[in-house]
Order: sequence, then C-alpha cells, then structure tokens
Amino acid sequence: MKRVLILGAGRSSSSLIRYMLDHAGACQWYLTVADVSLETAQKKIGSNDAGKAVQFDINDPESSKEIIGGADIVISLLPPNFHPLVALRCLEGSKHFITASYVSDELKAFDKEAREKGLVFLNECGLDPGIDHLSAMKVIDDIRDNGGTITSFESFTGGLIAPETDPGNPWRYKFTWNPRNVVMAGQSTAKYLHDGKSKYISYQQLFRRITPIHVPGYGNYEGYANRDSLKYIDTYGLLGISTILRGTLRHKGFCAAWNILVQLGCCDDSYAMEYVSKMTHAGFLNAFLPANPGDNTEEKVCTHFGLKASDPEIKMLKWSGFFEDTPVGLDQGSPAKILEYMLNKKWVLKDEDKDQIVMWHRFRYVLEGKAKEIQASLVATGFDAVYTAMAKTVGLPLGIATRLIASDNIRARGVIIPTTREFYRPILRELGALGIALNELEVP
Amino acid sequence: MKRVLILGAGRSSSSLIRYMLDHAGACQWYLTVADVSLETAQKKIGSNDAGKAVQFDINDPESSKEIIGGADIVISLLPPNFHPLVALRCLEGSKHFITASYVSDELKAFDKEAREKGLVFLNECGLDPGIDHLSAMKVIDDIRDNGGTITSFESFTGGLIAPETDPGNPWRYKFTWNPRNVVMAGQSTAKYLHDGKSKYISYQQLFRRITPIHVPGYGNYEGYANRDSLKYIDTYGLLGISTILRGTLRHKGFCAAWNILVQLGCCDDSYAMEYVSKMTHAGFLNAFLPANPGDNTEEKVCTHFGLKASDPEIKMLKWSGFFEDTPVGLDQGSPAKILEYMLNKKWVLKDEDKDQIVMWHRFRYVLEGKAKEIQASLVATGFDAVYTAMAKTVGLPLGIATRLIASDNIRARGVIIPTTREFYRPILRELGALGIALNELEVP
Repeated sequence: MKRVLILGAGRSSSSLIRYMLDHAGACQWYLTVADVSLETAQKKIGSNDAGKAVQFDINDPESSKEIIGGADIVISLLPPNFHPLVALRCLEGSKHFITASYVSDELKAFDKEAREKGLVFLNECGLDPGIDHLSAMKVIDDIRDNGGTITSFESFTGGLIAPETDPGNPWRYKFTWNPRNVVMAGQSTAKYLHDGKSKYISYQQLFRRITPIHVPGYGNYEGYANRDSLKYIDTYGLLGISTILRGTLRHKGFCAAWNILVQLGCCDDSYAMEYVSKMTHAGFLNAFLPANPGDNTEEKVCTHFGLKASDPEIKMLKWSGFFEDTPVGLDQGSPAKILEYMLNKKWVLKDEDKDQIVMWHRFRYVLEGKAKEIQASLVATGFDAVYTAMAKTVGLPLGIATRLIASDNIRARGVIIPTTREFYRPILRELGALGIALNELEVP
Repeated sequence: MKRVLILGAGRSSSSLIRYMLDHAGACQWYLTVADVSLETAQKKIGSNDAGKAVQFDINDPESSKEIIGGADIVISLLPPNFHPLVALRCLEGSKHFITASYVSDELKAFDKEAREKGLVFLNECGLDPGIDHLSAMKVIDDIRDNGGTITSFESFTGGLIAPETDPGNPWRYKFTWNPRNVVMAGQSTAKYLHDGKSKYISYQQLFRRITPIHVPGYGNYEGYANRDSLKYIDTYGLLGISTILRGTLRHKGFCAAWNILVQLGCCDDSYAMEYVSKMTHAGFLNAFLPANPGDNTEEKVCTHFGLKASDPEIKMLKWSGFFEDTPVGLDQGSPAKILEYMLNKKWVLKDEDKDQIVMWHRFRYVLEGKAKEIQASLVATGFDAVYTAMAKTVGLPLGIATRLIASDNIRARGVIIPTTREFYRPILRELGALGIALNELEVP
C-alpha cells in the first residue's frame, strides 16, 4: 500500500483527486489530501474511504514534517514559491515529489541529493508545462526515429471556452486561469528563432504579430509568442533547428481586440489611477484616449484606431461593456487591476460553463531530402466549472505519472521533467483513453 | 569679496564659468572651479586670475569639507545623486547652495535647518527645470495681476540643432543631452489633465499623441507629453485649472519616425541581444521585424507600418543608416544601448555644430468673461559644441541667481525653486539682455 499525499485542494485539484480515488483500489494506494482549509480538503474527498483530509500549513514545520513524513509520494499543487520548501521536506523524509510547475533554479539545486537518495523529483507534468512536453517529444522522437531532421517547431496552447458555452461571447474567452496573469500577459519582450535568426517582439507589437492556426474539426485560432522560446532548443534537444516559436493560443480575432487595450495602456500595473471611485467603464477607457473628438468613447476608439463600429474589435469591446456608463465599482487600482475587475463581470466562469483547452504544434522537417510537415493538436473540454478542462489536463498527467512512479515504472531519478519515452508513451496512451487524444496530421 | 565655488567642470559648465569670471570684478567675487579632473577645471579657468581650479572628490570627506568650507556660495553641477551630500556639507559650513536639478525628497528634508541658518538652497534654476519656471510664472502672474483666470497651461521644451547645422539631417536633432536619456525617454506612462479629466498616455501611444506647435520666426514643431504634468498644479499654484500638459519639444516629423523605433522595441533596455558582434545596422532593425516579406529591411518597415519609401519617416531612418549593412561595432548590449550607439554615429555634436533650445508655453485664460490666449516662446542658439545653447540656458540662470544671492537681493530662505518675482524678474531681464528673450504673443 503506497501512501500518496496531495498538497493543496484548490480549483485545479478536482480531476487529480478524483483520478487518485478512482484508482486507489487497483493501484493499492491510500490518499491524503492536505489543505490550509480542512473543509476544502474534506469536500474533495467526500465519503470515499480510500482517502482522508487533513489540515496543513507548509509554514508550520512540526505538522508539515509529520504529514509529509507519513507519505511515500508527495504531489504539490501549492503555489510554485512553496515548492523548494516542500522539496526540502521530501528530501529529508526520502519521498518522491511531483509538481506541474516550472523547475526553478532553487529546485534544480536538489538534483544531486535526490539522485543519491533514489528519488524522483518530477516537475512540469501538468498541461503547459506538461502535456506540451509529452506531445511534442512524442512527435519529435517519431520524426527522428524515421530518419527525419526537424527544421522548425511551433507550439501554441490556450485555455478557452467550449463552443456551447456563452455563444454570444465574441471573444470566445473567459477567465479559466489566474485573471491577473491574463491581463498582464506579454509585458516582457518575446524572443524566438526564425530561419536561424534571433527575433524579438516588443509588447507593443505582440498582439499584431500573430500566427494563424487551424485545428481540424474545431476551427480557426491564432497564437501570440510567449516570453522565451529559445530555451526549448535545449529542453527538447533541438540544437541546430532553424525556427522555434512557442506561444499562447486564442480564438481568431481575440488578439486584434486585446491589442486595443494594450495600445491604450489599460494593462499597465505600474501606477494607481485617480478618481477610481467615480469611474465608469467608458470613463476608464476614455482616460487613455485623446481628448478629441468629442465625448463618445466608442467613436473615439474607432477614430483613433481607424475602425468602424461594425468591426469585430469594436463589437468585442462593446460586448465587454467598455462603452457603458456603468460604475466600475472599485475605490482604487492600477489600470491592470481595474481592467481585470471590469472584464471579470463578463468573463467569470459560471457553474454550468465548459472550458476548453486547445494545443497545437507544427513540426517542419526534412526526410530523404524532402520538406515535410506534421501538425498535431489536442483538445480537451471541461465538464462544468469544477471539473474543468484545465483541472483535467493539469491533474490527469500528474495522476498518471504518480501511478507510474508508484508502480516502479520510471527509471529516471533526480529533478526531471517528462520529456522521455518512459513518461510520454504511457501518459499519452492513458490520456487518449480518457478522451484527451493527440491528433497528428501529415500536411501534404 | 564673496567666494563662489562651482563643483563640476563638465560639458554644461562652460557658460556658467565664463559668466562668473566675466562678472568677478563688478560683483566682487572670487571663483573656485572644482572637478575630479584638475586639468578639466584648469582648462575652464584658463589664465584668468579671478578664479582658480582645484581637484575635488565629493567622496573624500576631508578635502571636500575643506574646499566647501572655503566658499560662501556653492553651485553644484554634479550628478543629482550627489546633491544631498553636498547640501549636508553646505549646511555644516553655513553656505548657500545652488543647483539646476530637481528637488529630491532627500533634499527637501534640509529645508527647516537651512531656513534656521538663513541659507538659500536654490534648486531647479537651469533650463528645464529653470527657465521654464521663470518664464511660465512671469506670464501666470501677469495674467492674474490683470484679473484673468487661467484655465489651461501647456509647456514644451526641447534641445535641438540650429537651422544652419547639418542641413541634410532630416531629424533636425542631435545628441545635445545625455544620449541614454533620449533613447529611454517616455517609458513610463505620461499623466496630464484635460478639461478637468485625468488623462494617461502609454509609451506605445506617446509619440502618436503629439501637440502641434508653431513658434513665430522659427517654424513648426511638435511636443510629446512628459511623465507627470499634474505636479505642476502645485508648483505653479494653478489649483482649479482644467488643462495642464508639459512635454518635450521636437521638430515636426520627429515623433512619427521615432515612433517606429518605439513600436519595434528598439528602445528596450531590459535584456541583452544575441550575436551583437556580428550585427549590422539593418540586422538590428530586422531582428524586431516580422520574418516576412523577404530580406529587405527598408521594404519590411514600409510594409509593416503602411508607409512608402518616399515618406519622411523612412527617409529619416535611412539617413540614420538603419537600412545599411554596416557593422554596428559593439560586442554586446541591450536594444537601447545598441540603438544609442548607432544613432550617435550621425547624431554626435561636431565642434562647429550649433545647438538650439526652443521653449514654448500656451496659456488659456478668461478675462472679463472672454476666452483669451497667450503663447510665449524662447529660443537660444549655441555658439559651438562647447558654448552650447544647452550650457548657456543651464548656466546663465545659475550665474544670475548666484549674483542675486551674493548681493543680498533674495529674501527667500530654505530649500526653494525660482517661481517667485524676486527670481524671475531680474533673471528674465538679464537673460533678455544676453539675447535669450521670452516672446509673448496675444493670440486673437
């Protein structure tokens, strides 16, 4: 009987906890769910006797040592800044440690000791990072096994909403992830490689420089570049590749409308605005617009950006209420904070809403002197606002990886990420069986 | 005999030192010029026996106490971060203290003690800040004395080049001030007041949101907003004003061309670019442009910004060499550093070049129920690359203020800036006699 401990029973834990409980009998494990709120943890376990809930505070050394000490494998869903401390406790108690977060330099420092103790410290095993690694490496290895040389790799992932959710929402978007991060996205320069040349995209250009994406059976999307694509040359072993670009995926048309907010400075978090308590939606936007012509915010946005009221960007801003004289409802805040608050009025996920994750990769390669292309995509749809696609795609890879580690099917040790066959083969196979399948398409 | 000490004999000291030496006999003072480089200080004094040069290091407590102790009035041209230390030494030795720099909070803290000791700690008495205060307050007080109520104040100042200098330079601009500050200008949000409403201009909008300016006898200019115009409501006693906007003045057309560099992210100082040692001018610009179409940087800029090769922006970039395959000549650097280096190849001030300062204010006011407008401008032209307009307009107000303080014509004490009649009347009168006159124009 393995003892598995999950730290954190928040939003993204639902699918992981359900997976762990569902597999408790077959996998012979007992689950402990630990959270600062005992009630939250209890709610997730319910009346299932394959697991129990405990109160947990990582900053309490006594109890956290005891709780971690009572487990064989620890999965942490805590915010990433707590991971070095959890990792230290796992090292002290010789426990495997699993997260869906990026490997920090602090965490990397545990590599040698974890190896020496025969422990797996697995990170980046959720959605993005996670399924992106698994699915990209699967195709990359396949192409190489066939004798191909990869020349270009582009990859975009986005957390969107399902077609049946909120059909009148022209953004085809709601907050399914930390809203603040959505509002602040892209504020540092994006760096990528194109035809062997380093390329840089400033924030002011980011939402203009988009990649059109078509996912068969799902429709048309677009992607904007993420911060640093170059580091994936190492991560994926792509030394010598000509083009590499990773980014965020949105429905077609999203970026052009978002760009208006970016250009006006609405996503700025560096200063507090004045007279916020008296501010209306239209007044907020107006504060960033030239004084002329006139007082009609919608007309001013049109004039300033050379658009018509019938253009999709304007319709999207209108749907979000940006031209209304509704009070904002805050007393203070930076532009970014006020924007987030206004957007949330329409973009908050309702109980019955279904989110949707869309991932898309394009691989260009040369095989026997011929240029070839594979596009691979993966779509996951949520069940409701609790069992979201986000929770599923973050939680299931964690759960499956835990099963692999618990059953001694992973040879790697130390601080690792899931880019090797021993991870991606079984995890992708099981995800496929659970309805989250990677669809590969050879483009003629 | 008053003993006047000037700290710093760098670029902007030439006109101040000449003024002080020229007035040594009439004003009965003896001048000491102190600099880290004795040679630099000696060069400025020459063979004039009204002054001497000394070696000076503010970080050497012994010698700096002794040198400051030997003066009655200390003028500091050192970088602003040294001013609190100089002010402390002046307080210890009971010396008047004069600078052309903005009053920092650290400096403000000396106010009470300086008052108690009967000392003048005068700041912001150069060009901008300096002549802007003097000239604006003169007109503001005149309007009020006549019974008018000021509703709007706009003010722009720029350091440009004279018409006879570099006639082929389409920017009508060279580096006459810290080049790094020119490249980085505007990166924080500009804040101003328009018709009673707070307005914000993001960096991405700054060089699009320009104010057209005409200076009679000189031509057409344009202004972009500076960081925080709102604080001048207090400084100038303009509580209740509807519109206030301060900014930087450039020749007409400058902002549209500069905006291309801003939009592309060329002024970013937050990261190091790759492969700088192999970079060409065109390669630099190309790194910020989309991969398509093709390899011609000029065509790509045109396509991306919807411009033609014959448009002034493109001609300006071309004149600066941005489309050339010339090596940049640096081994490393951020975009901002590389841009500054490239611009400097054409924008460095040559020995025979003349710079030109242009200042322009617009006051709107109501007098006896009627809307009225005054525009006031001031232009100063440099003699050469040493006796620049910049050195003249920074140095002469400092010199004249020193004369006023030395001759006991200033009643104010403590940490102050020159916004009152006792400063602006005599200083503007003398500047006018020296050819730097404020021209006021009542606009019908």
